[in-house]
Amino acid sequence: MNEIITVAVAGASGRMGREVVKMVLGDPALKLAAAVSRSAAGQDAGRMAGLDSCGVEVKSDLESALAETRPDVLVDFTTPHSAVAHTRLAIEYGVRPVMGTTGYTPEDIEELDKLCRDKGIGGLIAPNFSIGAILMMKFAAEAAKYMPHLEIIEYHGDQKLDAPSGTAVKTAELISEARQELRQGNPDEKETIEGSRGGYYNGFRIHSVRLPGVFAQQEVVFGAFGQTLKIRHDSYDRAGYMPGVNTAVKKVMTHTGLVYGFEHYMD
Amino acid sequence: MNEIITVAVAGASGRMGREVVKMVLGDPALKLAAAVSRSAAGQDAGRMAGLDSCGVEVKSDLESALAETRPDVLVDFTTPHSAVAHTRLAIEYGVRPVMGTTGYTPEDIEELDKLCRDKGIGGLIAPNFSIGAILMMKFAAEAAKYMPHLEIIEYHGDQKLDAPSGTAVKTAELISEARQELRQGNPDEKETIEGSRGGYYNGFRIHSVRLPGVFAQQEVVFGAFGQTLKIRHDSYDRAGYMPGVNTAVKKVMTHTGLVYGFEHYMD
Amino acid sequence: MNEIITVAVAGASGRMGREVVKMVLGDPALKLAAAVSRSAAGQDAGRMAGLDSCGVEVKSDLESALAETRPDVLVDFTTPHSAVAHTRLAIEYGVRPVMGTTGYTPEDIEELDKLCRDKGIGGLIAPNFSIGAILMMKFAAEAAKYMPHLEIIEYHGDQKLDAPSGTAVKTAELISEARQELRQGNPDEKETIEGSRGGYYNGFRIHSVRLPGVFAQQEVVFGAFGQTLKIRHDSYDRAGYMPGVNTAVKKVMTHTGLVYGFEHYMD
Amino acid sequence: MNEIITVAVAGASGRMGREVVKMVLGDPALKLAAAVSRSAAGQDAGRMAGLDSCGVEVKSDLESALAETRPDVLVDFTTPHSAVAHTRLAIEYGVRPVMGTTGYTPEDIEELDKLCRDKGIGGLIAPNFSIGAILMMKFAAEAAKYMPHLEIIEYHGDQKLDAPSGTAVKTAELISEARQELRQGNPDEKETIEGSRGGYYNGFRIHSVRLPGVFAQQEVVFGAFGQTLKIRHDSYDRAGYMPGVNTAVKKVMTHTGLVYGFEHYMD
Repeated sequence: MNEIITVAVAGASGRMGREVVKMVLGDPALKLAAAVSRSAAGQDAGRMAGLDSCGVEVKSDLESALAETRPDVLVDFTTPHSAVAHTRLAIEYGVRPVMGTTGYTPEDIEELDKLCRDKGIGGLIAPNFSIGAILMMKFAAEAAKYMPHLEIIEYHGDQKLDAPSGTAVKTAELISEARQELRQGNPDEKETIEGSRGGYYNGFRIHSVRLPGVFAQQEVVFGAFGQTLKIRHDSYDRAGYMPGVNTAVKKVMTHTGLVYGFEHYMD
Repeated sequence: MNEIITVAVAGASGRMGREVVKMVLGDPALKLAAAVSRSAAGQDAGRMAGLDSCGVEVKSDLESALAETRPDVLVDFTTPHSAVAHTRLAIEYGVRPVMGTTGYTPEDIEELDKLCRDKGIGGLIAPNFSIGAILMMKFAAEAAKYMPHLEIIEYHGDQKLDAPSGTAVKTAELISEARQELRQGNPDEKETIEGSRGGYYNGFRIHSVRLPGVFAQQEVVFGAFGQTLKIRHDSYDRAGYMPGVNTAVKKVMTHTGLVYGFEHYMD
Repeated sequence: MNEIITVAVAGASGRMGREVVKMVLGDPALKLAAAVSRSAAGQDAGRMAGLDSCGVEVKSDLESALAETRPDVLVDFTTPHSAVAHTRLAIEYGVRPVMGTTGYTPEDIEELDKLCRDKGIGGLIAPNFSIGAILMMKFAAEAAKYMPHLEIIEYHGDQKLDAPSGTAVKTAELISEARQELRQGNPDEKETIEGSRGGYYNGFRIHSVRLPGVFAQQEVVFGAFGQTLKIRHDSYDRAGYMPGVNTAVKKVMTHTGLVYGFEHYMD
Repeated sequence: MNEIITVAVAGASGRMGREVVKMVLGDPALKLAAAVSRSAAGQDAGRMAGLDSCGVEVKSDLESALAETRPDVLVDFTTPHSAVAHTRLAIEYGVRPVMGTTGYTPEDIEELDKLCRDKGIGGLIAPNFSIGAILMMKFAAEAAKYMPHLEIIEYHGDQKLDAPSGTAVKTAELISEARQELRQGNPDEKETIEGSRGGYYNGFRIHSVRLPGVFAQQEVVFGAFGQTLKIRHDSYDRAGYMPGVNTAVKKVMTHTGLVYGFEHYMD
């Protein structure tokens, strides 16, 4: 890993993609080999990310970009729609995929893992690159074994379209796998204002707060006789994900096969 | 106010009533004149409250208790159902009512105020005796003028029947009077789990969390460009209301007419 | 464990001891065999704990109480001063010690473990019976591996004598064992008010807040690029420790040898 | 105020200055007349702020910039050192000063107020433009009248040099003016780790937390019998101050004389 790792970025003009371009340009151990974005094609990738020119022109087509530049790693923050196709394409060209998207079936993952192994390269699919968020989810699931009464409260910007957030749903799933079956609350409780008790998920509740000024925050609150336990993660901006992406780009060079979930890069 | 104030307690065997009995017995400036409770009639009031005997037998009938003992003040934590009748009864006997219940119409209050003035005595109706909770509501209403984007999150024990709490609804009313009309959030937002966005009230949302170990907590969160403001009150037990009740018993001796809301005793 | 477990309580008139007496009297699977307290000797144990008489007279001497009643378990919330002697005494009489005190050297623990094994009985020394507090400490130590920048803020009642709290120091020790060596903060930072940066412990800071109305709360805050993670435990009253003590009384019947730390009873 | 307001920015290349340039360029009701910065002189002001060129060249000298462009308002985020001189200069040229600095004596303010009135123009000195922070300070001072037991906990980035923060000290001053004299805590309390009880200020304590990822946060916690009240402000980035600066630029056009503190623009 002492050699410089060459990186292509797909979805380069998106909000995450621009942060990735900045991160790659800012780390002397990495080199931006290509940036791909249909909407920003023709621009200089550095300028597009709000920095000085870097001499890499944004391309519109992923396949030709990979074919021309043969980078070590592809970092892809595009859409679930194109996730599987992009992963397959990268592996085909011997490029290690680091995919910040969802949209894979278990069968997809099995197949892509096999393709990675055939090529002798590593790969990562990670819905979340935030170390703090991953710890929050892990601790929440573990606490739920001992303190099974809990609720999730998540906070995002007021223009977010969907509620609850993907992280809240993922946390709820992990908790459900870990804790004993339990329907919380008073069976006779009544809402005088509909919805005030939040969204019901497998015996507990999820509350989604939407306010300007908030980026992404989540708290899991556990209650038991005479005590509460709270696990809270506050994410202040997209740049906060970049240490995770940076780690991923370096780790993906060191193993063979496809890994699902950034948490596996954490020990 | 240097003379000892004599106090009757109605609803004496309830959870709040027992705290009031303890508070009165513990303050040398006050004297327990009577304790009224249908279910605990015949017991010693001190023993009922978990203390030593105090020599005051619990009575079952409020009117005869007031008639016999003619106390200075009645502290009443019964039900909204009997609120108006008890208040009227107290005033009739020249006893200053300190009512910890709701259930009054504006017309009731007007009439009872007139009755107090006719008798030349004071009275207080207070849905909340918690100084901290009152400050929280006041600050929340004031903040809403400058930071109109907000949500309310309240926490109570998991056996509570109704959601949202009375304090949350009262806070929501005060905020609505103070802030400009505003429908928050993305008009196109969608709940993938119904209720996750909370209860809708006049443009903003209320979330009710129910967990064991929690007594009564509320947070009002304001969001604006690049910042959030939070005002939070945590109430740990019923005893926390007693400093307010104690203040009320002493203040009600000093004025004429009926006051609605403990906040008016705070300057 | 289907037979009723007989329990002696030492330090029975202390604040924790009375809660233990209440807990034992309230669980049909347990029987109060003896209660020991020099200051309350002669009283009925139930009355001392604020309940009805239970027919068990408080004794002043632990040894004779154990000799007479031969209980299954001793629950001891006395002082570090008498911890070792009481543990040895209990084992001598074949009584399983559940010790809620500190004050043991590693050599003490080794010796007492051997004594337990010789008698074929279990024993527990637990500085903390709070499930939530134990989870907080465990998660904090684990998070420190990945997010090594942190500070501890603990809150207790304003009459507490020592700062920081025992739990804060224990947490700091566990964190120090887990995380990489790191001296946080700006090396040139200056306090214009002395002490404002808190107490220094192994590269990070501990802050002790003392306020009326607070029982015991602690928050460990982790900061990293663009994010913070918070793990917070709020303990509202002594009764909150009783589920842990209850579990301990039952678990100590099921193993041989001395266990140090309630966390070992948690899987 | 329907005419476009022309604005000069001093300290334009600083972190706050660049945000002000962005804000002015982004509001069609405002026009950037001049930008002053010794270190960035000769650059285009828009480019310096990370935007496209705006055609305004950064100048190195404030006086000549004011003399040439005669703007309506000067927004100045320079240093306490130059605060008085810059304010005087602006007034001399009939330019309304909006000063985001400290470093004024009461005599300075009196004199500058007189100068403003002689010229018939308004002016503002504001150490803090954050609406949320101002509300936090105001509420904290008011709450301290009723709940006099409190501590301040403030959080900033781990490279900050001074502790406590200016906002914490300002809050402490406002609280001290409002509350009754009180020395909190147990007079016999002992620190086993020096500094853990925080910095002493007029009877209460201030705690300064320094962590990466944090921009500026402050919480004032009040404790009383059975309850706590918390007032917390989280500032996520410098952009969060811009709504306040924008308001100030418009309000300063509407009055005569010098105002000290943005809070006076809030009703």
